Amino acid sequence: MRSTTGWQAHGTELRQVPLSRRDLRRDDIAVRVDFCGVCHTDLHSLRGHDGEGVLVPGHEFTGVVTEVGPDVTVFRAGDAVAVGNIVDSCGTCSMCEAGQENFCREFPTLTYGGKDRHDGTTTLGGYSREYVVREKFAYPLPSGLDPAAAAPLMCAGITVWEPMRALNVGPGMRVAVAGLGGLGHLAVKIAAALGAEVSVVSRSAERAKDAFRLGASGVVVSTDPESAAAARDSFDVLVDTIPVAHDLAPYLALVAVDGTLTQVGYLGSVTVETMDLLAGRKKLSSGGSGGLPATAAMLEFCAAHGITADVEVLPSKRVGEALERLDRGDVRYRFVLDLSDLD
Amino acid sequence: MRSTTGWQAHGTELRQVPLSRRDLRRDDIAVRVDFCGVCHTDLHSLRGHDGEGVLVPGHEFTGVVTEVGPDVTVFRAGDAVAVGNIVDSCGTCSMCEAGQENFCREFPTLTYGGKDRHDGTTTLGGYSREYVVREKFAYPLPSGLDPAAAAPLMCAGITVWEPMRALNVGPGMRVAVAGLGGLGHLAVKIAAALGAEVSVVSRSAERAKDAFRLGASGVVVSTDPESAAAARDSFDVLVDTIPVAHDLAPYLALVAVDGTLTQVGYLGSVTVETMDLLAGRKKLSSGGSGGLPATAAMLEFCAAHGITADVEVLPSKRVGEALERLDRGDVRYRFVLDLSDLD
Repeated sequence: MRSTTGWQAHGTELRQVPLSRRDLRRDDIAVRVDFCGVCHTDLHSLRGHDGEGVLVPGHEFTGVVTEVGPDVTVFRAGDAVAVGNIVDSCGTCSMCEAGQENFCREFPTLTYGGKDRHDGTTTLGGYSREYVVREKFAYPLPSGLDPAAAAPLMCAGITVWEPMRALNVGPGMRVAVAGLGGLGHLAVKIAAALGAEVSVVSRSAERAKDAFRLGASGVVVSTDPESAAAARDSFDVLVDTIPVAHDLAPYLALVAVDGTLTQVGYLGSVTVETMDLLAGRKKLSSGGSGGLPATAAMLEFCAAHGITADVEVLPSKRVGEALERLDRGDVRYRFVLDLSDLD
Repeated sequence: MRSTTGWQAHGTELRQVPLSRRDLRRDDIAVRVDFCGVCHTDLHSLRGHDGEGVLVPGHEFTGVVTEVGPDVTVFRAGDAVAVGNIVDSCGTCSMCEAGQENFCREFPTLTYGGKDRHDGTTTLGGYSREYVVREKFAYPLPSGLDPAAAAPLMCAGITVWEPMRALNVGPGMRVAVAGLGGLGHLAVKIAAALGAEVSVVSRSAERAKDAFRLGASGVVVSTDPESAAAARDSFDVLVDTIPVAHDLAPYLALVAVDGTLTQVGYLGSVTVETMDLLAGRKKLSSGGSGGLPATAAMLEFCAAHGITADVEVLPSKRVGEALERLDRGDVRYRFVLDLSDLD
């Protein structure tokens, strides 16, 4: 086993502890984790942690390859690398064969809190100085992308990229982004770069300035009845990144005839009035993570368009502060932990 | 006022009573109602009737024009005519202008239980020997379509036509129809005529024979785990015509990646697990009724392909029996009332 250090849950707190990583399998690479984004999922996992099992959060990180197994072909020591929220899948089902490893019928192995397909151990995430991963589930980090600001692309980025691509977001499309956080601000940047006409739907007019800076050309203030009424039935795609349970009706009202509301921020159960879908043949979808080809395509696109997250980088020692501020929405737009303080 | 006869709710029973119809406005036609389909909505309306207001059900009917107002241009006395579930709309909103009168922003006037836009009276439905309607909301019944069997096209038919057309159902598409009742059997016929490969999803294997006769090439028995597992992720469109609240999860499981479940049978609130949508980028939509151009197109298509409903025609005196049998699913596949017994 390999020794490293990471942030592990003790109750709902994270403590710095020594961690073990597996010895490299033939197709594994060892990654020195430099930067790991702080995702809402990390917060939920920590809160839901019952004390059973080991929890080390973190599933969007970048770093440098330090060692490779004998069958590794793509990476060499010293390569810049990025890892997202899945690290393995069955590889043989129809979904895996179609490059939708995220929909693997035997369920993909999650980057943390998953079950390793070979030894059955619980996977430990990227709030750690080292990660060992199959090379197939690691991506070369394109040069030109800042490694700290690129880390959130691996979860927040692909989560908004995949449904927008599936819905053909591009020139001529009117896209609204509800909620301007980690996912939302990347959705705005990516949709605008894809050529769509982008608006931000926000509860406060205050965020408008930032919306325009990020690439939006319009703002809908959802708490202002006039603003909401003027935008009724007007968006082909509404990317709902709000991370908590909420009433979808006012957002469905903004979707155009034959348009789609894709909910990517809150992944629990949702209740909709059928009539809110019917009146305009509107559709509800969801999204989260992506398959290997889509993730690689997203990284290439972001590199070509110079897209990364707006981040606030904190030394990993301040992870508690990052989570606490994330919880109350005090972040523009993604916290990223610098793991070098674990050396 | 004009005098006619119809079936009006007294409590949850229907009684034959004299009814009044408005004198013809300039763009009105008077229709002798010959056949009126019995829709689940009629059953729900009757059950939900609180005794306040007048309820005469019926919103899918065919008949013959008996008189026309001075501005009527399309119809003449003696013309065969069909009327569906909306009879007016504002005519000026963006939805009406786009030919989506069914989504009229001021809400379309329903064929029964609606509020007339001119005199504010409650509209009385097609369980009646005469109906007076704006010619704009009446359709020439194509010759060659049996008037009794064509009546259900005006609600059941358009309800499945509109979402299937919006979802581009046609050659190369795999369509499943869940629930083989009034809507379902028309969905099978129409989807097959549109060139799709159609399967029926049913709780019993018994209906398979009928499914094939209607145009299906496959059957999924939803209560058989093997049958359901074999059909997982395999339909581009699933038309869910089940008329009561039900768990959508087993049906969403049958929808292919990027496919859509369109719920047209039950129009209350629905709860879905976001993960059931996410795992396959699946979409949920709904449907019911259509705009004027779509309804006209549906009638033309049905005439060209010889599609009508499989009906059991009963004299209108037996409406109570029809509703009772509909309630327990004892119908293949639509009851149609013959109103000639009201003469």
